[in-house]
Amino acid sequence: MIKAGIVGGTGYTGVELLRLLAVHPKVKVDVITSRAEEGVPVTQLFTNLRGHYDELAFSVPDPDRLGECDVVFFATPHGVAQAMMPELMKRGVRVVDLSADFRIRDAELWAKWYGKPHGCPELIGSAVYGLPEVNRHLIADAQLIACPGCYPTATQLGFLPLLENNLVDPSRLIANAASGTSGAGRQASIDNLLSEVADSFKAYGSAGHRHLPEIEQGLNAVLPKGVGRAQLTFVPHLLPMVRGIHATLYATLRGDACDLQALYEERYANEPFVDVLPAGSHPQTRSVKSSNMCRIAVCRPQQRDTVVVMSVIDNLTKGASGQAIQNMNIMFGFDETMGLAAPALLP
Amino acid sequence: MIKAGIVGGTGYTGVELLRLLAVHPKVKVDVITSRAEEGVPVTQLFTNLRGHYDELAFSVPDPDRLGECDVVFFATPHGVAQAMMPELMKRGVRVVDLSADFRIRDAELWAKWYGKPHGCPELIGSAVYGLPEVNRHLIADAQLIACPGCYPTATQLGFLPLLENNLVDPSRLIANAASGTSGAGRQASIDNLLSEVADSFKAYGSAGHRHLPEIEQGLNAVLPKGVGRAQLTFVPHLLPMVRGIHATLYATLRGDACDLQALYEERYANEPFVDVLPAGSHPQTRSVKSSNMCRIAVCRPQQRDTVVVMSVIDNLTKGASGQAIQNMNIMFGFDETMGLAAPALLP
Amino acid sequence: MIKAGIVGGTGYTGVELLRLLAVHPKVKVDVITSRAEEGVPVTQLFTNLRGHYDELAFSVPDPDRLGECDVVFFATPHGVAQAMMPELMKRGVRVVDLSADFRIRDAELWAKWYGKPHGCPELIGSAVYGLPEVNRHLIADAQLIACPGCYPTATQLGFLPLLENNLVDPSRLIANAASGTSGAGRQASIDNLLSEVADSFKAYGSAGHRHLPEIEQGLNAVLPKGVGRAQLTFVPHLLPMVRGIHATLYATLRGDACDLQALYEERYANEPFVDVLPAGSHPQTRSVKSSNMCRIAVCRPQQRDTVVVMSVIDNLTKGASGQAIQNMNIMFGFDETMGLAAPALLP
Amino acid sequence: MIKAGIVGGTGYTGVELLRLLAVHPKVKVDVITSRAEEGVPVTQLFTNLRGHYDELAFSVPDPDRLGECDVVFFATPHGVAQAMMPELMKRGVRVVDLSADFRIRDAELWAKWYGKPHGCPELIGSAVYGLPEVNRHLIADAQLIACPGCYPTATQLGFLPLLENNLVDPSRLIANAASGTSGAGRQASIDNLLSEVADSFKAYGSAGHRHLPEIEQGLNAVLPKGVGRAQLTFVPHLLPMVRGIHATLYATLRGDACDLQALYEERYANEPFVDVLPAGSHPQTRSVKSSNMCRIAVCRPQQRDTVVVMSVIDNLTKGASGQAIQNMNIMFGFDETMGLAAPALLP
Repeated sequence: MIKAGIVGGTGYTGVELLRLLAVHPKVKVDVITSRAEEGVPVTQLFTNLRGHYDELAFSVPDPDRLGECDVVFFATPHGVAQAMMPELMKRGVRVVDLSADFRIRDAELWAKWYGKPHGCPELIGSAVYGLPEVNRHLIADAQLIACPGCYPTATQLGFLPLLENNLVDPSRLIANAASGTSGAGRQASIDNLLSEVADSFKAYGSAGHRHLPEIEQGLNAVLPKGVGRAQLTFVPHLLPMVRGIHATLYATLRGDACDLQALYEERYANEPFVDVLPAGSHPQTRSVKSSNMCRIAVCRPQQRDTVVVMSVIDNLTKGASGQAIQNMNIMFGFDETMGLAAPALLP
Repeated sequence: MIKAGIVGGTGYTGVELLRLLAVHPKVKVDVITSRAEEGVPVTQLFTNLRGHYDELAFSVPDPDRLGECDVVFFATPHGVAQAMMPELMKRGVRVVDLSADFRIRDAELWAKWYGKPHGCPELIGSAVYGLPEVNRHLIADAQLIACPGCYPTATQLGFLPLLENNLVDPSRLIANAASGTSGAGRQASIDNLLSEVADSFKAYGSAGHRHLPEIEQGLNAVLPKGVGRAQLTFVPHLLPMVRGIHATLYATLRGDACDLQALYEERYANEPFVDVLPAGSHPQTRSVKSSNMCRIAVCRPQQRDTVVVMSVIDNLTKGASGQAIQNMNIMFGFDETMGLAAPALLP
Repeated sequence: MIKAGIVGGTGYTGVELLRLLAVHPKVKVDVITSRAEEGVPVTQLFTNLRGHYDELAFSVPDPDRLGECDVVFFATPHGVAQAMMPELMKRGVRVVDLSADFRIRDAELWAKWYGKPHGCPELIGSAVYGLPEVNRHLIADAQLIACPGCYPTATQLGFLPLLENNLVDPSRLIANAASGTSGAGRQASIDNLLSEVADSFKAYGSAGHRHLPEIEQGLNAVLPKGVGRAQLTFVPHLLPMVRGIHATLYATLRGDACDLQALYEERYANEPFVDVLPAGSHPQTRSVKSSNMCRIAVCRPQQRDTVVVMSVIDNLTKGASGQAIQNMNIMFGFDETMGLAAPALLP
Repeated sequence: MIKAGIVGGTGYTGVELLRLLAVHPKVKVDVITSRAEEGVPVTQLFTNLRGHYDELAFSVPDPDRLGECDVVFFATPHGVAQAMMPELMKRGVRVVDLSADFRIRDAELWAKWYGKPHGCPELIGSAVYGLPEVNRHLIADAQLIACPGCYPTATQLGFLPLLENNLVDPSRLIANAASGTSGAGRQASIDNLLSEVADSFKAYGSAGHRHLPEIEQGLNAVLPKGVGRAQLTFVPHLLPMVRGIHATLYATLRGDACDLQALYEERYANEPFVDVLPAGSHPQTRSVKSSNMCRIAVCRPQQRDTVVVMSVIDNLTKGASGQAIQNMNIMFGFDETMGLAAPALLP
């Protein structure tokens, strides 16, 4: 049993970590922090957890207590992990940061998109981007994992086989993505009231969403040298439902297409959490709800030169807390699927 | 007062016609047909209509009774209108066909996409495609209107200003669209049960949706001569909600962009049912729910050469029955907005 | 044309008033107030209203400007109308107050349930409770209307025929009611996020909801003298949807039941906005969505002595803004259904 | 490892059994039947199960193959289990029947409510009603379990403490219950289309639902001798969501109330799947979604003599497949919570 800490446990990625870790055979959550809810039992805030964690209450973040953990998850808004990270690194704790704080490798670029200087640029270099399907070998030994965002996970997994093999024009990529409302977090707001977003659909952030530089960085990282730069038009949309991301990806084939179905199946043959559907399929977000799976389908409408990839994840699981646990499993030498094997909830 | 008939009134476009015509000052619904529900009062099937139409019951379609109407709406599956049209045309009735029967001007192409020979090719030539924003001048005198499909309406209105002015590469158009479930009609099925489609999102028909040839035909019709052919990648998606279509359109600018915002505002300045939102807006489907409006926003993310247009309609109103009434208003010389002026229902 | 003012127009009853008045032939909205949104065009907040009210912007409440209106609607939280009412009454304006400020005729009781002293007890006596099905004769001449709450409207209309005729034990009434989330208003909160309330159902306020004293007052008002006091167990529930109230009412028959179906049909035969469904029906909230109708069904399961009444309204229409306009129509001698005749939106 | 069979595996209780058994450490599903889907892999019908059950396909029901199983679950419409039961009993298989076939102990009563003669009256007497909170001691040794219905589970667990202790008038019980649409099963129908039931709420079956005799039988079974007969008014409602049952129960206290909170807490202190919430709580259906828990709250509004109990379950889990597995665990001497320990999915 390892001891885990969670910083910022009152949001949706926090409760999802708790839900998943409740049945993980090798992890005990020892400390969970929240300044606003100090002293409140977690089961009071999240009644689904009654019967689990009955002894656990939120506490003010304390580097010494966190320092006694084997692993600490940050489930915080951006900025928090940057501030606390040096103290934790010093204490030798291993960290999985679910926030955006260490995802972007260029501190200037981070500052541009997040509107303030990076608070801890000296640790960016040591952070490993926690997408196991790309960086599994680096994750095992990392002390600091920057866990990918939800849109970036669905989008990168969808584009990878095309880009790694230089099959498409990287300068004309399009990601039309849609997310459930839980992606907006558990914050008081008018904009995300059921009365405002139910029975409706809209795009948002089309002028520039913070996940854009993260995705482009990830796509460029897998592009062979000398074939150009990946450039993405990324339009996120808000779905009238709680969980799920659906990315519909468009790319222009460079020449004659190879067998796209075989390409995808081979690329992901050994990936426990990427499932390539049979040709002609359309993945449904509900087929991955509550699970750590990414399901993907690829097609080429009318046999023209535009390839379409559809990629679905649960934004709170493979898009956040599930992937964080997958990273932790790799870091601590556990079976990668430990605690993440339950099928999705359907219907 | 003119007399209206509705053929096939038990579906969602049927009840939407009834809802809208209930408050239209110049139209009385005289006959509504359904073989399956013969003799059943319409208010028994659609309790929202109690207090309106209390005398109206479904009857078996009878060309003589329909022939006494001034206007007949077809709210039927494809194939039905083709079979009955010659008899009605002969009797001099004016027809607004909400089905796909006369939308495609090439009978071969119709046959390919609809899987059977066209049943009435001799009348295709006289049918007017009822998109008032393009064909208003032809609608006024038409006897037979082919009312556009829901996706085609949202998509064409979104692309028109770009194509009419030859601003984008017509061979690389993308329409990523999403529809509420009412677009699938009022048919017993497992696939559209709430238990199957709530809390989920998926693409469908990516290999080729029947609206694709209709949209491409419409886009080519407005393209200036000699600038190439419009070719569209069209991926529809199913939203977990009842009403609304959202089309997110992508096109590659040919050269330096003009002022796209001004272009759209000018194109639609005099259109009563197309509303161009201020720059930076994202239209919500709920902003047009129950109304005949199409709301559009245009943007150019990162100032790159991909232009993004977002276009929303209510699939049952501007995407079907509302547009049918708009056509009828033009045909009979009524104010084009008559009976269609109520604001959308929000929240 | 009369001139109308709306105080507190940024909430859901405000936008519903605007939606309905946009097509009312005798009313022009001249002023709409909001301190927080001063200067903001209403169409910026509510995009469904674009093309209507394009000249109207929120302004700070000013008794002089409101004093020039023929009618003023209060769509405010409780307390606001009490503070402004003396000034408006003095100016001779007629007021329809949608808030709870003047519904309870006992100032002490109001203070107990609303947690502060009543701010204007001297005007309570002149306020007319605006339930037209009970008080139509008083509404015509009233200067101040206290428009009923949403639950109280559905519940009273459901119980009235039983209580007026002393058919049930008034001391054992039960109202099990459920409301869409729009009843909670347009306020930033975690509790009403889509992520919190979608796909879920719960009771709330079972220890005592503020609508309880209002309903009991209304039920007692129609009970014949000397037959006891009405006492209600009232449990509201929150539905995962936007609009609609469904009240399921239970009462114990005193003796042999009369023909309950006939009783209800006769009681409401001349009511334009109460529709008694055929025996065996179950009213759906969607059958009244966006409309001012209340639909009711009554039954007696297993022919035992418990009678069950089901009553549905749209909480924002017959439960608030529609009923306010119905009151206004009566006050100004317009046809009672003016501007309220459109059928409900279905599907 | 025991071998399990599932008869009728294409519905929602079937896929829920598969979801739960996929992570049960002691059970392997060996056979699953469906006449309509013979030969189809289960993962083709239920994509959430891909990666589990990849070898399992639907087969035609065969008593010999089922006879080789240790346990057989019936997830069928009523009538099917009655027809096959003698053959399975003879072969010594233990059966958990999720259908209504053996729930009612009076064959005449069954025939009255289900509209045909009972097909296997000779086995009714040996069937044990599988509500562990009442019949745990009988379940361990039973060969045939009649697994309770969803409404009956939520309702009985809510009423038990009051009735066992003769605290309320049993002749005036009311159960106002609401269910998600998955309770209606995976059958093609218009009535349960998302377009028909989303954004709406209604009662149904108020004249008499088939769960009524089952509930009354269960309530009478726990009532002390000589205190009268339990009689229930039961009104089910349909919620616009997939999973969850909420029962709001009303009863009239006979005399001075005891400490109701303590009563409930003590009654269920040792029950692993019944959770009594703190005083003042309102259980949400989402707090049990995907889990086998029943959460209950009890209150006494205004300190009057009507007690209100709120009881929530997931209709597919504690209301069907989870409870079936709980029964199986007891029958085979496994830990009662085995495979059922994961917390509910929230949000």
